[in-house]
Parts: sequence; structure tokens; C-alpha cells
Amino acid sequence: MEIIASKWSMVTLFALTDGPLRHGELVELSGGISRKVLTQTLRRLQANGLVERHAYAEAPPRVEYGLTDLGRTLEEPIRMLTAWARENGEAVVTFREAAEAARTIEADQAPR
Amino acid sequence: MEIIASKWSMVTLFALTDGPLRHGELVELSGGISRKVLTQTLRRLQANGLVERHAYAEAPPRVEYGLTDLGRTLEEPIRMLTAWARENGEAVVTFREAAEAARTIEADQAPR
Repeated sequence: MEIIASKWSMVTLFALTDGPLRHGELVELSGGISRKVLTQTLRRLQANGLVERHAYAEAPPRVEYGLTDLGRTLEEPIRMLTAWARENGEAVVTFREAAEAARTIEADQAPR
Repeated sequence: MEIIASKWSMVTLFALTDGPLRHGELVELSGGISRKVLTQTLRRLQANGLVERHAYAEAPPRVEYGLTDLGRTLEEPIRMLTAWARENGEAVVTFREAAEAARTIEADQAPR
């Protein structure tokens, strides 16, 4: 579970569900990931057999990353989790902000 | 996505899908989590509105943790991801070990 239980693993796997992509395309799609963290994430996903690297002998050389057959078995769970995050992300943030506000009021009212 | 994208968040949420549990029961069910990490995980899940804490005025006092309505919306994705881990965990480990073995052979054959 560790291999998939990280934000950038999930975001990268989700981005690849529509087909192989280049490093630069993944950076753009992954909203805020640094090139270094993406490289580490891709290496870890490759080491676990979920992503494979294709190097095309072209000029200039072209490299793409794609899901392996094992990686494709993750498509549905990752799509479902991403859909959850999209549908419920706001409710989580709203709850967090309300809880924060309640704590601030409590602190203000505490006897000095 | 960050809130759920951690191993112990997922394991804890999955354990709670069958109903509220006590801290000690969660430690046993979560296979290897320390009490301290579980406490931190529960606090983070509470702060994000996914888990709630019930304290029963009994002697001795009883405290249980359960999924909130928002937390229950995660049940299906978490069940699906846990099923994936159970079905494919071994294939990932096998791949990793084979890749490791290949690297070792390569290193042995490298000219000295």
C-alpha cells in the first residue's frame, strides 16, 4: 500500500491513465510537482513495476512514461479516489476552516 | 488528496469501515502502527472531518473513533484500493525483487 499511498504517486498514476506522457507534460498536468520530485516518483513507480520508460531513438531523443499492465490494474481505484477528492475536497477544507475558527474563538474567550 | 494519500490514513479509514473502534482495537487491526502514529493519524483525520471521537461517560471511561458522514463517502474508494493492494501487492514485491536481482547480476558482470 505504501507505494501508492502518497499524493504524488496518485497524481502521477492518474495523469498516466490517459496514456504515455513526457516528463514535461507530466509536470504541467500534475499541478505543482517539482521536476525533481516527479523524477523520484517516476523512479519509485518504475522500481515497483507500475510505470515503464520508453526511449525513442529519434533526434532529438524522445522519452515517455506509461503505465505497465500491473499499473493499469490501478486505474479504477485511482480514478475513484481522484473523483472523491474532486467531489469532497471542498467539504474537507470547509470543515477544517470551521474547526480552526472555533478554536480561535475558544482561545479568545479563555480567561486571561 | 494529501489527507488520504498516506498509508496509515488509508489503513485506519479501512479499519473503521466496519464501525467505530477503540484506540487499542485500531492498533491491533492496523498491523504494525505505533500508538503514537495512530494518535497523530486519528487527530489529522478528525481535523479534516473524516473521523469523530465518541467519549462515553462510563467507569472506566470508554472512547471510540468512528467515520463521519464525510468519512463514509470514502468507504468505496478505500475498499477498492485495499482490495487492489491485497490482489497485486505480491506482484509488486516480485517485480521489485526481480529488478533488484537483475541489478546485482549486472553489477557483478561489470568490468573491474
